[in-house]
Amino acid sequence: MPIVKVQMYQGRSHAQKAELARVITEAIVSIAHTTSEQTTVIFEDVSKENWAAGGVLASDSS
Amino acid sequence: MPIVKVQMYQGRSHAQKAELARVITEAIVSIAHTTSEQTTVIFEDVSKENWAAGGVLASDSS
Amino acid sequence: MPIVKVQMYQGRSHAQKAELARVITEAIVSIAHTTSEQTTVIFEDVSKENWAAGGVLASDSS
Amino acid sequence: MPIVKVQMYQGRSHAQKAELARVITEAIVSIAHTTSEQTTVIFEDVSKENWAAGGVLASDSS
Amino acid sequence: MPIVKVQMYQGRSHAQKAELARVITEAIVSIAHTTSEQTTVIFEDVSKENWAAGGVLASDSS
Amino acid sequence: MPIVKVQMYQGRSHAQKAELARVITEAIVSIAHTTSEQTTVIFEDVSKENWAAGGVLASDSS
Repeated sequence: MPIVKVQMYQGRSHAQKAELARVITEAIVSIAHTTSEQTTVIFEDVSKENWAAGGVLASDSS
Repeated sequence: MPIVKVQMYQGRSHAQKAELARVITEAIVSIAHTTSEQTTVIFEDVSKENWAAGGVLASDSS
Repeated sequence: MPIVKVQMYQGRSHAQKAELARVITEAIVSIAHTTSEQTTVIFEDVSKENWAAGGVLASDSS
Repeated sequence: MPIVKVQMYQGRSHAQKAELARVITEAIVSIAHTTSEQTTVIFEDVSKENWAAGGVLASDSS
Repeated sequence: MPIVKVQMYQGRSHAQKAELARVITEAIVSIAHTTSEQTTVIFEDVSKENWAAGGVLASDSS
Repeated sequence: MPIVKVQMYQGRSHAQKAELARVITEAIVSIAHTTSEQTTVIFEDVSKENWAAGGVLASDSS
């Protein structure tokens, strides 16, 4: 019963998420030997105001 | 100091969350032997666009 | 398809976790109107060396 | 490659998050001996409707 | 800077995790248009004592 | 009631975690205007077998 959480900047399209869910689920099923019904993928959209690398919010970096 | 995170499809009402917080906290207190003051419950609303089972986004499944 | 994550100090027994899983799932099913098959509960044991309140690790507080 | 997630009530300003990201990253770099480029800080804003202490949603407590 | 967390039952081999990390990263890069250097994959092994479906710990289900 | 989760490679000492908990809590209190009693810091140790950057497990990168 794998659970995959994908955190990305917000702005990815519905089609991108649908494709990611499909491909990641296929990878989990074939490599980890489970079924697609058992596999959950959750996307979490993070704004650039809420994500910092190098100590600087992404919304502030040039 | 238990922390409980509940991820559900968005759309649950305030009353449902209040009841869940009360009942889950009571269960934690009585079964895990802590106090309600020490127990935190956090809800995370997930849209059907951000949740996939069987490799298909819930917003796309019929 | 609710997912509940319970973070507690390590040391709870198998029986306590089994009881918590049962009671929390029942609460989710009856209050959030889903099925028990759709409900996942995950426990995460945290050592007192890895948990701080008030800026002090629990393993260091008297 | 430390990842720090900060969950707080929503309402903190951009300036507060920028300052927190800077100070927490500096602490990670100097104490855990890594580089700021390797350090990620993610903020997660939680509404008072989604956070309960003592079994009561924060939005309902007086 | 996507971060992917994969929660699975413990017991997957090093080779399975290496293959999953490679394939999931490739999917993220090609579909979400980022670089592999920006993409982090974290595995979290969960014991059957810590995972319940249908209100029953996986270690207790037959 | 901020909750801070710090994911790092395993191997940091007790003293490093104690210092991080203290400094991060002070930053949260002074910048986000809360109290130290309200602030929780949780460390999560991740092995190099469970962490991949660039599609390669850290345990496999030279």
